[in-house]
Amino acid sequence: MKFSLVSQLDYEITNPLTFLLSVRAQQCPGQKVLAENFSISVTVPHQLQECFTTGTRFDRVHAEIPGIYTIRYEAEVEVESERLPAGELPQRGPETFSLEVLPYLYPSRYCQSDRIGRLAFDLFGHLTTPEQQMRAVTQWINTRISYVSGSTGSSTSAVDTLVERAGVCRDFAHLGIALCRAMNIPARYFTGYAHDLQPPDFHACFEAWIGGRWVFQDPTGLASPEGVVRIGTGRDASDCSVNTAFGSMRLRKQIVECHALDPAFQKMTPEELAAFSVSLEPGPPLW
Amino acid sequence: MKFSLVSQLDYEITNPLTFLLSVRAQQCPGQKVLAENFSISVTVPHQLQECFTTGTRFDRVHAEIPGIYTIRYEAEVEVESERLPAGELPQRGPETFSLEVLPYLYPSRYCQSDRIGRLAFDLFGHLTTPEQQMRAVTQWINTRISYVSGSTGSSTSAVDTLVERAGVCRDFAHLGIALCRAMNIPARYFTGYAHDLQPPDFHACFEAWIGGRWVFQDPTGLASPEGVVRIGTGRDASDCSVNTAFGSMRLRKQIVECHALDPAFQKMTPEELAAFSVSLEPGPPLW
Amino acid sequence: MKFSLVSQLDYEITNPLTFLLSVRAQQCPGQKVLAENFSISVTVPHQLQECFTTGTRFDRVHAEIPGIYTIRYEAEVEVESERLPAGELPQRGPETFSLEVLPYLYPSRYCQSDRIGRLAFDLFGHLTTPEQQMRAVTQWINTRISYVSGSTGSSTSAVDTLVERAGVCRDFAHLGIALCRAMNIPARYFTGYAHDLQPPDFHACFEAWIGGRWVFQDPTGLASPEGVVRIGTGRDASDCSVNTAFGSMRLRKQIVECHALDPAFQKMTPEELAAFSVSLEPGPPLW
Amino acid sequence: MKFSLVSQLDYEITNPLTFLLSVRAQQCPGQKVLAENFSISVTVPHQLQECFTTGTRFDRVHAEIPGIYTIRYEAEVEVESERLPAGELPQRGPETFSLEVLPYLYPSRYCQSDRIGRLAFDLFGHLTTPEQQMRAVTQWINTRISYVSGSTGSSTSAVDTLVERAGVCRDFAHLGIALCRAMNIPARYFTGYAHDLQPPDFHACFEAWIGGRWVFQDPTGLASPEGVVRIGTGRDASDCSVNTAFGSMRLRKQIVECHALDPAFQKMTPEELAAFSVSLEPGPPLW
Repeated sequence: MKFSLVSQLDYEITNPLTFLLSVRAQQCPGQKVLAENFSISVTVPHQLQECFTTGTRFDRVHAEIPGIYTIRYEAEVEVESERLPAGELPQRGPETFSLEVLPYLYPSRYCQSDRIGRLAFDLFGHLTTPEQQMRAVTQWINTRISYVSGSTGSSTSAVDTLVERAGVCRDFAHLGIALCRAMNIPARYFTGYAHDLQPPDFHACFEAWIGGRWVFQDPTGLASPEGVVRIGTGRDASDCSVNTAFGSMRLRKQIVECHALDPAFQKMTPEELAAFSVSLEPGPPLW
Repeated sequence: MKFSLVSQLDYEITNPLTFLLSVRAQQCPGQKVLAENFSISVTVPHQLQECFTTGTRFDRVHAEIPGIYTIRYEAEVEVESERLPAGELPQRGPETFSLEVLPYLYPSRYCQSDRIGRLAFDLFGHLTTPEQQMRAVTQWINTRISYVSGSTGSSTSAVDTLVERAGVCRDFAHLGIALCRAMNIPARYFTGYAHDLQPPDFHACFEAWIGGRWVFQDPTGLASPEGVVRIGTGRDASDCSVNTAFGSMRLRKQIVECHALDPAFQKMTPEELAAFSVSLEPGPPLW
Repeated sequence: MKFSLVSQLDYEITNPLTFLLSVRAQQCPGQKVLAENFSISVTVPHQLQECFTTGTRFDRVHAEIPGIYTIRYEAEVEVESERLPAGELPQRGPETFSLEVLPYLYPSRYCQSDRIGRLAFDLFGHLTTPEQQMRAVTQWINTRISYVSGSTGSSTSAVDTLVERAGVCRDFAHLGIALCRAMNIPARYFTGYAHDLQPPDFHACFEAWIGGRWVFQDPTGLASPEGVVRIGTGRDASDCSVNTAFGSMRLRKQIVECHALDPAFQKMTPEELAAFSVSLEPGPPLW
Repeated sequence: MKFSLVSQLDYEITNPLTFLLSVRAQQCPGQKVLAENFSISVTVPHQLQECFTTGTRFDRVHAEIPGIYTIRYEAEVEVESERLPAGELPQRGPETFSLEVLPYLYPSRYCQSDRIGRLAFDLFGHLTTPEQQMRAVTQWINTRISYVSGSTGSSTSAVDTLVERAGVCRDFAHLGIALCRAMNIPARYFTGYAHDLQPPDFHACFEAWIGGRWVFQDPTGLASPEGVVRIGTGRDASDCSVNTAFGSMRLRKQIVECHALDPAFQKMTPEELAAFSVSLEPGPPLW
């Protein structure tokens, strides 16, 4: 499926600083950037870099002159997601985890999985496969946590959301990750663009390591697993800021757009979501 | 019902200090101290005081000389608790609360009811009377929180227990209080002696303000509502320390005993607990 | 000194509810309400009550009809504060505390004094009198914490402010209280009106129990100790809400005004603040 | 400098499980394992793996049979640390950071640098170079935090330590990391063996990224920078567990030993520590 993306960020800068933007679609297995354009309204030195462990791409910008900097990114991206029949993902336990997935098993800034082991097993321990547990986690969050814009902030963590029962996509993702890790299911943070997201914004979801594959989950239910484009991969939001600024700058305006280019594109139905898990990365045959 | 109580605390004191002990049974409506003896092994100035709002009694001791101080309290106490048929407590809403119960509605150090409103209503909002909600809170804590000696400390709060799902009687009581207050049910901390408690120790429970009465609840299930003797009443454990010391002293040994004097005394059965709420204070006729 | 006060709160109410307003000046030792008028734009049952332990006054309102409720309070109040020469307050230790001040020594919802004993003694332990310690606490907060409107919320506590180093008057007061209590100085929350406060709002400060007197402190430095009128007294903000609502209602507009009526009124100068501690309650002679 | 190491861990295992041990010295730039022996008292499948991003080595063990498993590691390791004259490390700002150091700049589970920016700049913002700031951080922690065995637990974080002012080596390291990151200095967790550490245990310290080099810091002052052998590198303790167990097992006994083999080895003196920063990895010439 092909998507057209636009993001525009207008920053006000008053003092010289360096910042790292992360708005570009990844070039990664399952995702191909067919065309892209990145521009800054002010002529400044800037450099594109790619993290070799996560694949996240950064534009490093050094701004010397005060003013409004309009950063605009446009791209056409193809994503080859894969539907995996629910219930047929292999049941591979922790003894099969390679060291590369280990960082996604440990607790992180916003996902204190170390504190919620009893709670996770109380809620989901009766389920017998990691896939069932992951699905139940997503379902539980979707049902029990209220989506309330503006209810949380940049220091809100999974434990806060568990207590306060409200948040936004970032908080839903953090809680999903924390609950999965608490049950020894590696889970990682996903940020990206989502088809026709309302209200338009960058989106946050998560992926769980099930049967040797990264399986996509959106506890908010706002995005279709087949309708997202990856920007960042990380342990949690701390790894996936849109902007890591070494100094102060102020966001004045933001535009984010994402549309599937195939007019036949449809969100997965509840029946399809029940019948399939979706992986955004091509993987080995399941058995 | 009459109870015989013993508590003994052996403290090591190295520097002069003042401390306030709270080990005596209250003299309050529904509870009569028939006989008591309080002794300190070292001759020191000491003074008995009673808090006029809560009725809690304190022995203020000033220790000048280093050494081991053995404090021993023995008493015979009569408690007139009242069985209130479940489901028949009047449904009086917040509009009837007098200012005296207000402090027990506000959040306190260990009971952050202000943070868990959504959670409480998610779990218990479908229940239609405060009495049903209070009973469901107690039942939920008893089922979902593991009693694990040594799992918590002096700064553990209701929110921690909600997340970590383990604790001791103090934590169970704090969580019960926080959940009740979050649903606009005033709730207060109770410390006291409990008949044949195993392992022997002071006990912590809570009381909820239902239909104009303080109704006793023990989410640990370790004590029978008719088998307890009140020492302290407060917002939470911060108001009910066994010892408030203005300086450092070390507890070397502790003995706590409580036995019903009537050989016919029996713990309430599950059926009785289902059929009756128990108030430790005599109150006005229900209707 | 006489003050004229106005507060007006416009609430939107959609469902029937009871709420308790606390906007009236206290009638207490040192403070006399010369005249007052309290009105609600909609005719509803309402009742004035006074808490017998704290003296805080509440208007209990029951609103049945949806609509905008404009609550307006106007008063003329006389406050007889007392200047106590700095350094001359008696040094009375914890052994002299009566049970009435004990609740202000214990940790409370927003003032976790139990966690910061080491920190408080590290910062202020070298000072030899409680009065010096209290003054150093106020000075330290004023210097080290940034006043940033909107930086904190209703669940922000003293420990958060200690870590994040920013807040508003409520947070400054909580931190002052927590630090004092951590050094065995009873401290309580004060809410009220402050002369010509900018921007106009209700104000929060604290009082410390020094030498047998409640001494007023404003760590924000925005109010003059002789320019405030007490509304509420409590352990912390949890006891002193402007509005305790048993249901949902929305504040649409707020007006708060306070002016000294004597044109000669002046804020205390830094020199005067250094030379005198101020108590808002008349007390016994110091020695 | 050469070191001889021993660690022995006796675990009681009752149910089959997989666990990952991390007790081996790293094979990394600046550190060479001259000889080593790793043994398990029970014959079980086990496999050595090395994390390709951090270099940490893991022994993956699958235990089927209940019993006591004695794991013993002995090694002789050579470490080539480098003394860098204090004050001469180049002052390279964030604009020079490569993406590899970025993960060590972001907040992590136990190092919430995002919350303490104001505090860090208040304490250390007057210092003009990152090296001075890093040294001041280490000095501040050493002076203001009390080393108290048993005072903290596995969920204690840098923010807790900042508030409670007590902890063990792990907590000291977390606080050092959090404060450095809050000032835009990348910092990472170091676990390892330390020469003649008292009491004998694994040790935790941190490294800060200064002038293009990882510079070693031990805020506890217990280890000499030239007297340590690296086991693990990570964002914080969550990445560097001695044992990641997928199931329950119980540590019954632990032995840890580390001795410099050169009898002339001496701990760096305070004067030397003031004059030199130490890097455990060989690096490019400074200028």
